[in-house]
Amino acid sequence: MTEMNKGLEGVIASQTKISSIIDDRLTYVGYDIGDLAEHASFEEVIYLLWYYRLPNKRELAIFQEQLTKEMKLGHKIIASLAVIAHEKVHPMSVMRTMVSMLGVYDKDSEGDSNLSNYSKAMKLVAKMPTLVAAYARMRKDEVPLQPRGDLSLAGNFLYMLTGTEPTPLHVKAMNRALVLHAEHEMNASTFSARVCVATLSDIYSGVTAAIGSLKGALHGGANEQVMVMLAEIGDESNVVAYLDAKLAKKEKIMGFGHRVYENGDPRAQYLRDMCEELTTVTGDTKWYDISRAVEQYVWDKKQLKPNVDFYSATVYHCLGIDQDLFTPIFTVSRIAGWSAHILEQYEDNRLIRPRAEYVGETNNTYIPVEER
Amino acid sequence: MTEMNKGLEGVIASQTKISSIIDDRLTYVGYDIGDLAEHASFEEVIYLLWYYRLPNKRELAIFQEQLTKEMKLGHKIIASLAVIAHEKVHPMSVMRTMVSMLGVYDKDSEGDSNLSNYSKAMKLVAKMPTLVAAYARMRKDEVPLQPRGDLSLAGNFLYMLTGTEPTPLHVKAMNRALVLHAEHEMNASTFSARVCVATLSDIYSGVTAAIGSLKGALHGGANEQVMVMLAEIGDESNVVAYLDAKLAKKEKIMGFGHRVYENGDPRAQYLRDMCEELTTVTGDTKWYDISRAVEQYVWDKKQLKPNVDFYSATVYHCLGIDQDLFTPIFTVSRIAGWSAHILEQYEDNRLIRPRAEYVGETNNTYIPVEER
Ligand SMILES: CC(C)(COP(=O)(O)OP(=O)(O)OC[C@H]1O[C@@H](n2cnc3c(N)ncnc32)[C@H](O)[C@@H]1OP(=O)(O)O)[C@@H](O)C(=O)NCCC(=O)NCCS
Ligand SMILES: CC(C)(COP(=O)(O)OP(=O)(O)OC[C@H]1O[C@@H](n2cnc3c(N)ncnc32)[C@H](O)[C@@H]1OP(=O)(O)O)[C@@H](O)C(=O)NCCC(=O)NCCS
Repeated sequence: MTEMNKGLEGVIASQTKISSIIDDRLTYVGYDIGDLAEHASFEEVIYLLWYYRLPNKRELAIFQEQLTKEMKLGHKIIASLAVIAHEKVHPMSVMRTMVSMLGVYDKDSEGDSNLSNYSKAMKLVAKMPTLVAAYARMRKDEVPLQPRGDLSLAGNFLYMLTGTEPTPLHVKAMNRALVLHAEHEMNASTFSARVCVATLSDIYSGVTAAIGSLKGALHGGANEQVMVMLAEIGDESNVVAYLDAKLAKKEKIMGFGHRVYENGDPRAQYLRDMCEELTTVTGDTKWYDISRAVEQYVWDKKQLKPNVDFYSATVYHCLGIDQDLFTPIFTVSRIAGWSAHILEQYEDNRLIRPRAEYVGETNNTYIPVEER
Repeated sequence: MTEMNKGLEGVIASQTKISSIIDDRLTYVGYDIGDLAEHASFEEVIYLLWYYRLPNKRELAIFQEQLTKEMKLGHKIIASLAVIAHEKVHPMSVMRTMVSMLGVYDKDSEGDSNLSNYSKAMKLVAKMPTLVAAYARMRKDEVPLQPRGDLSLAGNFLYMLTGTEPTPLHVKAMNRALVLHAEHEMNASTFSARVCVATLSDIYSGVTAAIGSLKGALHGGANEQVMVMLAEIGDESNVVAYLDAKLAKKEKIMGFGHRVYENGDPRAQYLRDMCEELTTVTGDTKWYDISRAVEQYVWDKKQLKPNVDFYSATVYHCLGIDQDLFTPIFTVSRIAGWSAHILEQYEDNRLIRPRAEYVGETNNTYIPVEER
């Protein structure tokens, strides 16, 4: 056995052809993340992650058509969502439950052929945006909207969320955020999905496990916490006092630091640029300015750089999205990577079963309760 | 970074004071599994796993009272279960969804104090048997039953399942099965729960992830598959021909082999004894005899010994339980270990985030779709 490694830092749990982080550079199937953030649609990225290549024109058209078709939610799912949409609970708990429920209503949920698994992956990536949008509306007593055939996934998501046709800039911002969050090697939620399906459990179980893991504040939950912090700061002039106090209490600053990147998360810069573009257009640069000041402070004091969750918070805020939906939006994107990893795990499976080092009591003997 | 380790065999992911597997011997907090199987109630074992010691008389009485109180399901949960109980889907998908739903309806689901987490763990271990029993009845259009204050957890579970007061032998068998399945170090479902909550996600997310993982045929799902196999064999005289054919097709024999034990799973013998006792009493030893013959065959041909899932199948069958409920019963027990590990993870947390070895394409450059 190996030495105890708390957090499994640096332990290689699997091979993958999906993405790489090497020398602080992130690629999806060998494409630099910047190249994809600049040019690719989220639909192309999903295809890329599943099939290890970009689709040609015909393949992409068919893929988009299937996606749009699968985006619709069945009436049983809408009915289940209606029952819980008003509960005062974290939206990620609702998403975890609803995705598990999709598995209950899928007649094919036990199918384990390749075809069945790809088809379930398709249902999941397609229905996730619709679920988040339907939930966001239903909790405000608005009717959920059907996806439109003429919009991209990013556009459809914004449309179903707001009920109005999104501007090209907003679609560009959402598409970029979806591309940048789609996949990230063996992060905690992806790893939990692989551990789950390596028992030969089904894809709904894997994605449900992943959603529960993404929810945590050290992982996807950080983007919501970033917005909480920015709102508490409220004005650029408060940045130093606020963060001084936070560090004095030894609290972590959400949206900073990373297990793998040593010189900063490359995704942060593309989201920062997007954030700048969005706030310049509106003329209200307040949140961008606060964010820059926070970035500067954390660098000066802790030599930590922002990760993907830091500027995505401001981007979503500029798109008019409620802060408790930020982590659900992360699922709309990361489900692409989760499903790719689940499919890859099935291809060459082995049970993932590590060990624990026992540091507890030894040589106990049962004594009847009367004598204790 | 370390070398790639498929399945993380022998990798130590954490320290624990909960249980140990050393030289093929299993202990819970230093108590040999045989000692506990012989003497302990499942309630005592839950307490032991959470508090690292057995309760005294007063502590146990309070603990049992709290458990009985928490066993009841709220009317919203019963209503949700009624909606899906008739869906033709694996019962583990229903359990995964319902436990996630418990989190939706728990006003305290985001509480992260120690007190809150122990109290949620209590709700989960208490409600799991009621959920499985209610589901088993509701799918047959029978009304779900309330737990009784005068029965043990094992007794209550059988009572709520069947509607009749179980015999002392049946209670003893169920209690023993629950004790033997309660905890097993860093098995796949427990590991997925720890990975999940190490992001600082909540306990419902952790247990939901674990249920999805336990469902797989290489893990908890094996006990159901064992019964499928025994039923297909049908008669002792068919054992050799049936298993010859199975091995010729390179199929694994469910209920045999283990990642950690080298000379057999110590839990198997206690279940085998229980199985013998149960079948001797009824006078119908058929399933026990087939099981013994299978055990002998697999040893002769593959030098593999039965694991916990092999004889538990026959035990549950002798108790008159439907085979698709065998894995849900595993959750009724293992939730003790899951919750103990989740509580332990929170006590000394670090994000669990391993790496992957990249073996995919490199140096790709985006080309517009028209040019592909
Ligand atoms: C991402 C993260 C979980 C990585 O964790 P990790 O690899 O286990 O890193 P560690 O917790 O071991 O941190 C190493 C050191 O940096 C410090 N550190 C790391 N991130 C920090 C942060 N965001 N704020 C303040 N200090 C931080 C730790 O306190 C620790 O200091 P110490 O050695 O003095 O105790 C961690 O950086 C973090 O919690 N960030 C905030 C949450 C977040 O943004 N998550 C989203 C990630 S995409
Ligand atoms: C439990 C289990 C998943 C452990 O898996 P593992 O540690 O990854 O073991 P491996 O799959 O590497 O098995 C090692 C060898 O034994 C063989 N083997 C293991 N269990 C076997 C079984 N039940 N039937 C037939 N062959 C088996 C494997 O085929 C492999 O042979 P090979 O080296 O010729 O390929 C595995 O034994 C198994 O699948 N058992 C059946 C399912 C089961 O009962 N699970 C419940 C566990 S409590």
